[in-house]
Amino acid sequence: MTTAAGATRVPQEERTRVMRARLLEATVDCLVERGFAGTSTTLVSERAGVSRGAQLHHFPTKNDLVVAAVEHLTEKRGAELAAAAAALPDGPRHTRAVMQMLGDHFASPVFNAALELWVAARTDAQLLAAVGPLEQRVGRETHRLTVELLGADESVPGVRELVQATLDLVRGLGLANTITDDAHRRGRILDRWADVLDKELA
Amino acid sequence: MTTAAGATRVPQEERTRVMRARLLEATVDCLVERGFAGTSTTLVSERAGVSRGAQLHHFPTKNDLVVAAVEHLTEKRGAELAAAAAALPDGPRHTRAVMQMLGDHFASPVFNAALELWVAARTDAQLLAAVGPLEQRVGRETHRLTVELLGADESVPGVRELVQATLDLVRGLGLANTITDDAHRRGRILDRWADVLDKELA
Repeated sequence: MTTAAGATRVPQEERTRVMRARLLEATVDCLVERGFAGTSTTLVSERAGVSRGAQLHHFPTKNDLVVAAVEHLTEKRGAELAAAAAALPDGPRHTRAVMQMLGDHFASPVFNAALELWVAARTDAQLLAAVGPLEQRVGRETHRLTVELLGADESVPGVRELVQATLDLVRGLGLANTITDDAHRRGRILDRWADVLDKELA
Repeated sequence: MTTAAGATRVPQEERTRVMRARLLEATVDCLVERGFAGTSTTLVSERAGVSRGAQLHHFPTKNDLVVAAVEHLTEKRGAELAAAAAALPDGPRHTRAVMQMLGDHFASPVFNAALELWVAARTDAQLLAAVGPLEQRVGRETHRLTVELLGADESVPGVRELVQATLDLVRGLGLANTITDDAHRRGRILDRWADVLDKELA
């Protein structure tokens, strides 16, 4: 039993949700293809097929749009990562599989979009005020997931630093991958790191 | 015995060298403070106190200027790193000292200037054509120095990947440091990694 008001409200909410998602995905595509400087609200609304009015209603400024976009896609990719991780087989090659998964995550287009934002935020105080807390939250969440994936016991001295090093490594590999396809080299490095982790975390 | 021509040529060459260095250092300062998008040839010539004409004579385009600047400063900092490294004491804390030195190197303003260039090059084919080879050359040089500093024997299986991982780690730490001062966390991670290297390279 739904009321008439309920029946109209739900589709409207759904339309809004879909439109926001289209705007945010178009923004990430734009950041990936054209960089922060080449991204504009006009370009994003054209690309998403959303009117300027509707776009400005939801995201009044470019900064609102890019921060929401990277947040949205990071959450979406984070959830995908967690789901894929849950399906990983146990066994002697588990750590290697975790490392490959993290390496792929940090070599994805979303990493490049986030990188555009971090670098722009470095010299833009207003953007930094929004990107700083987002970055901290994402960092904590990724750390928590990595601890879980590796089955690491952070109460053991040195383990926390090793998990942090693992994430700094894949961040560095992500950066190395931005201007050249680095997949082959990355694979060998991640395998070697997995060996180290298996010994150190045993 | 110098000829009259020789006597005038040397000061002219010296003046040119000093002017070029002033332009390149002003360019790096500009990249660090204002980012790639906020850097212009006009701003750089003002900042360096060099006429527009002279600046355009030496570096006709913004791309010429930024690539030469990052190359110049990377070489200068690389030489400083090699000199400081040569002065490191041997002994049980040697690896730790090497890691701190590499970590500081990748957390320096020159890293931020280079980062601005890499990220801009990702979406600018013309810039990429110049930055790609520079990045490869600098990468090889840093790798070679790191092998030497760590006394690593790359003929042993897995050692090369461990050296590469070390450099990807400090690159990731450099990126983490761009929007927050990460020195304390970085120090603990580098110490932990030094322990791993001491075991793995023994």
